[in-house]
Amino acid sequence: MATGSIGRIAVLGAGPVVEHGAWPVKSVIGESFEVTATVFAEGHDAVRATVVLTDPGGRAHSVAMTRVNAGLDAWAATVSGARTGLWSYRVEGWSDPYGTWSHDAVVKVGAGVDVELMLEEGARLLERAVAGVARSRDQAAVLTDAIAGLRDAGQPPEGRLSAGVSSEVRAELDARPLRDHVTPSREFPWRVERERALYGAWYEFFPRSEGARLDEGTGEWTSGTLRTAARRLDAVAAMGFDIVYLTPIHPIGAVNRKGRNNSLGAGPSDPGSPYAIGSADGGHDSIHPDLGTFTDFGAFVTRAHELGLEVALDLALNCAPDHPWAASHPEWFTIRADGSIAYAENPPKKYQDIYPLNFDNDPEGLYAEILRVVRVWLDHGVTIFRVDNPHTKPLWLWERLIADVATTHPDVIWLAEAFTRPPMMHTLAKIGFQQSYTYFTWRNTRAELQEYCAELAGPAAAYMRPNFWPTTHDILTPAMQHGGPQTWKTRAVLAATLSPSYGIYAGYELVERVARPGAEEQIDNEKYEFRDRRWAEREAEGTTLTAYLTLINEIRRAHPALHRLRNLRFHHADDEHVLVFSKARRLYDRDDVIIVVANVEPEHTRDTWIHLTMAELGLEPRDHFIAHDLITGEHWNWSEHNFVRLGPATEPVHVIHVLTEGLASSR
Amino acid sequence: MATGSIGRIAVLGAGPVVEHGAWPVKSVIGESFEVTATVFAEGHDAVRATVVLTDPGGRAHSVAMTRVNAGLDAWAATVSGARTGLWSYRVEGWSDPYGTWSHDAVVKVGAGVDVELMLEEGARLLERAVAGVARSRDQAAVLTDAIAGLRDAGQPPEGRLSAGVSSEVRAELDARPLRDHVTPSREFPWRVERERALYGAWYEFFPRSEGARLDEGTGEWTSGTLRTAARRLDAVAAMGFDIVYLTPIHPIGAVNRKGRNNSLGAGPSDPGSPYAIGSADGGHDSIHPDLGTFTDFGAFVTRAHELGLEVALDLALNCAPDHPWAASHPEWFTIRADGSIAYAENPPKKYQDIYPLNFDNDPEGLYAEILRVVRVWLDHGVTIFRVDNPHTKPLWLWERLIADVATTHPDVIWLAEAFTRPPMMHTLAKIGFQQSYTYFTWRNTRAELQEYCAELAGPAAAYMRPNFWPTTHDILTPAMQHGGPQTWKTRAVLAATLSPSYGIYAGYELVERVARPGAEEQIDNEKYEFRDRRWAEREAEGTTLTAYLTLINEIRRAHPALHRLRNLRFHHADDEHVLVFSKARRLYDRDDVIIVVANVEPEHTRDTWIHLTMAELGLEPRDHFIAHDLITGEHWNWSEHNFVRLGPATEPVHVIHVLTEGLASSR
Repeated sequence: MATGSIGRIAVLGAGPVVEHGAWPVKSVIGESFEVTATVFAEGHDAVRATVVLTDPGGRAHSVAMTRVNAGLDAWAATVSGARTGLWSYRVEGWSDPYGTWSHDAVVKVGAGVDVELMLEEGARLLERAVAGVARSRDQAAVLTDAIAGLRDAGQPPEGRLSAGVSSEVRAELDARPLRDHVTPSREFPWRVERERALYGAWYEFFPRSEGARLDEGTGEWTSGTLRTAARRLDAVAAMGFDIVYLTPIHPIGAVNRKGRNNSLGAGPSDPGSPYAIGSADGGHDSIHPDLGTFTDFGAFVTRAHELGLEVALDLALNCAPDHPWAASHPEWFTIRADGSIAYAENPPKKYQDIYPLNFDNDPEGLYAEILRVVRVWLDHGVTIFRVDNPHTKPLWLWERLIADVATTHPDVIWLAEAFTRPPMMHTLAKIGFQQSYTYFTWRNTRAELQEYCAELAGPAAAYMRPNFWPTTHDILTPAMQHGGPQTWKTRAVLAATLSPSYGIYAGYELVERVARPGAEEQIDNEKYEFRDRRWAEREAEGTTLTAYLTLINEIRRAHPALHRLRNLRFHHADDEHVLVFSKARRLYDRDDVIIVVANVEPEHTRDTWIHLTMAELGLEPRDHFIAHDLITGEHWNWSEHNFVRLGPATEPVHVIHVLTEGLASSR
Repeated sequence: MATGSIGRIAVLGAGPVVEHGAWPVKSVIGESFEVTATVFAEGHDAVRATVVLTDPGGRAHSVAMTRVNAGLDAWAATVSGARTGLWSYRVEGWSDPYGTWSHDAVVKVGAGVDVELMLEEGARLLERAVAGVARSRDQAAVLTDAIAGLRDAGQPPEGRLSAGVSSEVRAELDARPLRDHVTPSREFPWRVERERALYGAWYEFFPRSEGARLDEGTGEWTSGTLRTAARRLDAVAAMGFDIVYLTPIHPIGAVNRKGRNNSLGAGPSDPGSPYAIGSADGGHDSIHPDLGTFTDFGAFVTRAHELGLEVALDLALNCAPDHPWAASHPEWFTIRADGSIAYAENPPKKYQDIYPLNFDNDPEGLYAEILRVVRVWLDHGVTIFRVDNPHTKPLWLWERLIADVATTHPDVIWLAEAFTRPPMMHTLAKIGFQQSYTYFTWRNTRAELQEYCAELAGPAAAYMRPNFWPTTHDILTPAMQHGGPQTWKTRAVLAATLSPSYGIYAGYELVERVARPGAEEQIDNEKYEFRDRRWAEREAEGTTLTAYLTLINEIRRAHPALHRLRNLRFHHADDEHVLVFSKARRLYDRDDVIIVVANVEPEHTRDTWIHLTMAELGLEPRDHFIAHDLITGEHWNWSEHNFVRLGPATEPVHVIHVLTEGLASSR
């Protein structure tokens, strides 16, 4: 039980911090965030604060902090990391003797109090600043000139004082201050990851469906293969996606296999759920024979990379009863009192197509095997894992696995599919997952979206990165079932602009919105059967959302403000069904500012005033600007208060680029 | 930079914690507070949580936690410490195999699924519970009987199951559970202090004034002495105070001494400020010759103790220019460029009666001397220090001094007079001060009082204990200057009931409310002159608040609910100038519940409805109770909504004791 002690300067409450520093806070390369702390000392001497960032190579980088609330002694600095790896930061509080002296000297010399003494004390202080801090010859000359000026008895006191408090002297001592009583906080861990950990557009498909063909004569299906699936990659890349995510590609259990629409007792032609993994053909380290070989997988990955796509693989630690592990390592499962292996169950229901793993009988053996399996896929070019139901496995597994993989593959990204209670979701993020599925899928109203996204972009952004999915192969919410194409457009653009990472499940282009009765997922779900979407025919009909999704992804790529989460800000609209938010980002040569105005009930027309917090856009309250709607290409002259109409007859969402060039004269 | 790792069960966010555990949280003996944590695991197995308290002797005490929010996996337990010293606590999360089994067994046996298997697994689990946890013979028999029942093939399954899930078995396993995967949080420090650290009524006086006499003929004063001041102790004790606090009793500087009303240039008869300490007669380890000797001080302390009063001494680390340290240790002060010692100043103003200490030239030497001085007073019976302006000395001084004194005098209490910004005030509490003066003195409206007291009784109560003073010798706010006796009564009773510790400065009885023009303190302030209050004459006039203060202190002593802070709860009144709060405390044999209803602008009559949150009083919404006003002795029949009238013509505050005896029949 460590107990601390207060330093010479009080430096408290430094943040962000995750669980007392047990795990690092996170950012991606170049992503800015605020470090804050409470820094103060006794009495009235000038105090200042600095953040010291230590990079993975051990090099320190200092960033001056600003006192953002004097009454609360609150300090802040905006920082970012320029390379990946485990950084740390600390806050240093220090006494600023020059600040103390210059404040007092101006007052006292002005009042004629202790004049000679104050000037001499200033000279001695600057001598200390010359001797105590490394400076170039020119930099030191600024101070030695000031020392001579302070002691120039031939000048009037005001002139001598001016020499000591000139803007040159202040600038030199701001850049290279004389710091007394430097007091560091604890060192807090901070991990910098590659940008894809925060920002990317995902496209999910079942490889066996891409190229699957039904023989109308026999009624028999031919499975798609990795080779046929690879042909779909051009379209995915053309839509502007960054990641293609494949549902599991391993052999599927034959024992107790599920049939169409999750029915018990599969027919001989039913392909089974790719989430019931393992058969005589192999387990998690194998490829389903119908899909092809590792050579085919290699060709798929190569083609994806050629198109600029990364390949994400599903890691679903479910075993069918005929998984090879069940025979070779029954101790990796739960053994019942009668010696049998326990099925998955939700009493009294049993799921007899799955044996859940038990990590408590042989944790080391099972862990080593899982790590081996993961390395098989790493060796074949997988760079991202989408983990199925991580919340049903022990947390230590993920913490250890993610850390071990990072030792050899530091750029691997892990997405947690933990649709469960908030503490588990947040803890998976804290212990290492780069990304998390979220409750976005169920947040439909403006109030719900604002509250939830403010939480995600606020304190949680220190460690958790959201990935927004309007639908998945498991989830088709009532709102998506009942909403038409306007709703599907709205949900896609909200996902793509509220969150830097978002994803689409194949068929979104076709607004596939028929649910299996009694379930909130697709009817004739691909989990249990092949689906030939006849892409060419459907695209030829001209009614798909393909062009819209392509446009969204183009807008995302062109606008760096949308690559960030922490910059999300909400604005007010009088109509409670209109959501307004902005993202602004300062680039080296310009500001990128996007405003999104969305009708979240797009089946009805909304006429409303919206009210922008201009400071969040980098503007003054009375400024005007050109609002360029990137969806329609229209331009409007906007200011703080603007009228919008969004309805079934129009596009349901404005994605506005704020243009201020050449407007200075209108202010 | 320590990094943690997740355990088998997730145990996160345990609290209360101060600055990541750098300093202990606090309570007094028997004071209850809540330990909370987030505890969960993967999957659906039953999880439970326990707080383990480790006492200063190293003995562990377990307290079961309750799941207070299942959706957030939030657990809580109410704990307290029964002896003083440095305790610690940790939260243990654990898997509850009996809870998992009994839930599943009831469902599955009821549905006829896996019946024999579930019963046998229950029997094996109870065998493990017998073997793995220490139990008496009778306790073990409860389980072995259940095992036999589970396996009794002659009985129907329902009967066998009942044997395994009987209330006796559940009770035995609640008391002595079989715990799997026990996962502890970090150990967090917690200090338990004596009750006086939280609860006490303080009375402040200047000893030289008690017994001071003006010779009307010569106009010369004779100083009161420790012997004459001791005669005032009977009255202080009779009013029911617990602590008598003396302003400094040391020799007073003669150099640049201040005259009456803080004037420069004292006359030869001016006694000077006791806060300008040190002269040829000695320093902080000496007694002013006019007050007497250490023998006299000993007699004062002895008389106080006879009356049940503790003696608190002012520790004011201010030095007059003629303090002995200025000659013996100039390095303990700031030396200017001309070799002189720096006066206190607020540029361009100088305070030439004071040399501030400088702790950076010889920290060890100065610290050793201050510790020696403090030990002089400890050796003479002082048990409490009221520290003057601790925020103008380095924080490390107090952290070290309080800790060092505690090694030999663990029951010493330190009160910080830090009227400064919140971070300093809170940090002084974190690093060791048992009590703090507060902003109560300036919080007058209902809104101000509610907001501030909710903060103090909420998270801050983990480390900071308030002491509420309506006035001090330094502070006479406009509200107290302009308010009459009704206001003075109200402020006293609010201080005495909102906060377990409160204090009164001598003369409060007399409603001394005339300020020096331009200052918010008393005119003819005792800091600069003697004051003979002619107590006997004034009491004979019958207009003092003495009886009221006595009544307040009697009510405090009789009602343990008022000895606590964390139990403060506010209730609503329709009139925004009426403050309503309650404190409830469960005692071993009864509940003590007090409701205070105060007109915070008592110069005007308030007629209003008040609305009680009955659950906070331990009552049901439709309950009635007898409201016994401890101020007037009146009784009313009250329920959730009650009408009150509080005005200049009545007492301004009700202090109500909730009586529910014999009312059960009326429900």
